[in-house]
Amino acid sequence: MSSQLPIGVFDSGVGGLTVVKEIMSQLPDERIIYFGDTARVPYGNKSQETVIKYSRQIARFLLSEKVKAIVIACNTASAFALETLTAELDVPIIGVVRPGARAAAEVTKNGRIGVIGTEGTVRSGLYGTYIRELRPDVEVYGKACPLFVPLVEEGLHDDEVTELMAKRYLAPLLAKSVDTIVLGCTHYPLLRGVVSKVAGDGVTLVNPAYETARDLRELLAEKDLLANSGTQREHQFFVSDGAEQFRAFANSILPCEMIETDAVNVKVFA
Amino acid sequence: MSSQLPIGVFDSGVGGLTVVKEIMSQLPDERIIYFGDTARVPYGNKSQETVIKYSRQIARFLLSEKVKAIVIACNTASAFALETLTAELDVPIIGVVRPGARAAAEVTKNGRIGVIGTEGTVRSGLYGTYIRELRPDVEVYGKACPLFVPLVEEGLHDDEVTELMAKRYLAPLLAKSVDTIVLGCTHYPLLRGVVSKVAGDGVTLVNPAYETARDLRELLAEKDLLANSGTQREHQFFVSDGAEQFRAFANSILPCEMIETDAVNVKVFA
Repeated sequence: MSSQLPIGVFDSGVGGLTVVKEIMSQLPDERIIYFGDTARVPYGNKSQETVIKYSRQIARFLLSEKVKAIVIACNTASAFALETLTAELDVPIIGVVRPGARAAAEVTKNGRIGVIGTEGTVRSGLYGTYIRELRPDVEVYGKACPLFVPLVEEGLHDDEVTELMAKRYLAPLLAKSVDTIVLGCTHYPLLRGVVSKVAGDGVTLVNPAYETARDLRELLAEKDLLANSGTQREHQFFVSDGAEQFRAFANSILPCEMIETDAVNVKVFA
Repeated sequence: MSSQLPIGVFDSGVGGLTVVKEIMSQLPDERIIYFGDTARVPYGNKSQETVIKYSRQIARFLLSEKVKAIVIACNTASAFALETLTAELDVPIIGVVRPGARAAAEVTKNGRIGVIGTEGTVRSGLYGTYIRELRPDVEVYGKACPLFVPLVEEGLHDDEVTELMAKRYLAPLLAKSVDTIVLGCTHYPLLRGVVSKVAGDGVTLVNPAYETARDLRELLAEKDLLANSGTQREHQFFVSDGAEQFRAFANSILPCEMIETDAVNVKVFA
């Protein structure tokens, strides 16, 4: 396995670009091949079986592009499909849930952690499982926030409607006196301002995207797969639908101008 | 073609059940086979090419179930795929857009009509095209309301958040003094109360589901395909994902208790 090969990153749509942003920042020498499943987004309310099927198809596509490692930059897909893909694939693969869980376990002082995410992520209870592996004493409270993704995609990052929904969604977590909230969906870092305002100064927000990039660096170093400096080529971005719309969103959150987008039919890899 | 065969109805998910409800009410002798593409919902922000592909797969599935006619109970799929499917298939097929457009053209007094729907439906401009075929003098104003579907699916039919969004979405239409608004998405009849409150008494709301059932009756009568009374067998409901969730929603809006749901992989018909 050559360290000069690219890293494959995938998500149900555009949200995973927040993870790409962190990888670009922390691992500037790595080349990224991104796949956003915009034809089948969202994953958050789909069954585990379906999410595994879609994730497997995308992983095969990324492998056909000769990636040296895969990052599942989607909380729902990480929660539902990481274990299966790890068992099936020959490349190192990481999701965003374990890094986020580790950070939350390190950050909490009062041992009360809230996890917000899609229905699928919250229902899986995986953040709680991982957090309690590290800190069995900690209480973890999950809350699905189904409207947060559509609100972000509608551009209402900082809006009274978003704040109103945040107050409702966070109320049961704040009632449990959590001092830490995991932003357990890749769209949510874009709502950090509103969530932080509603949660108050006493609550620390954990962004698994940041932690995932850190873990990726460790994983690649361990396997001697870190790219040499100065060899970076262009990143590539693939989507299953709506390349133009994707490009607009990507350019609004990524610190790079070169975005190549191409529609691809992943189902040929099924 | 036997008049005793069932009618195929499909939608991107659960929304088309509002059309099923009208068909059951107006054509109680007909048997319905419904397909909700819950694994790939929503269609509203997908490209025309993708929506045609998905619609074609589902139509093939319905034909394999030996339906005598097909109803596209989804505005986006009607706007994007009706023409293609009509050209390709041998059975009578109708969508919800033309019936809704006809009703709106009949209802308006001041010749100013608003159409609310998904991005895809509004972008297609098809309501306007059909309305102006009947009434070239009429002005049609479209407004996409991307948050309405997630709000309905979150159960916020009658909620201050929904009302706040309705005020924003309807403002540009009301500024044009429309006297008629087409509920151009199958989820929207469930928001009729809020939309009506915001739009005021001077605005008539058109529900294409009702008109579609009326057109279906005429179409079947014309082709001598109306089922005999007293021969109705059980309706059947198929989804591509999440049968249990679908069943719960279906039972909340349909006036029948017998719901058979089964996951089916439509891609084998691709």
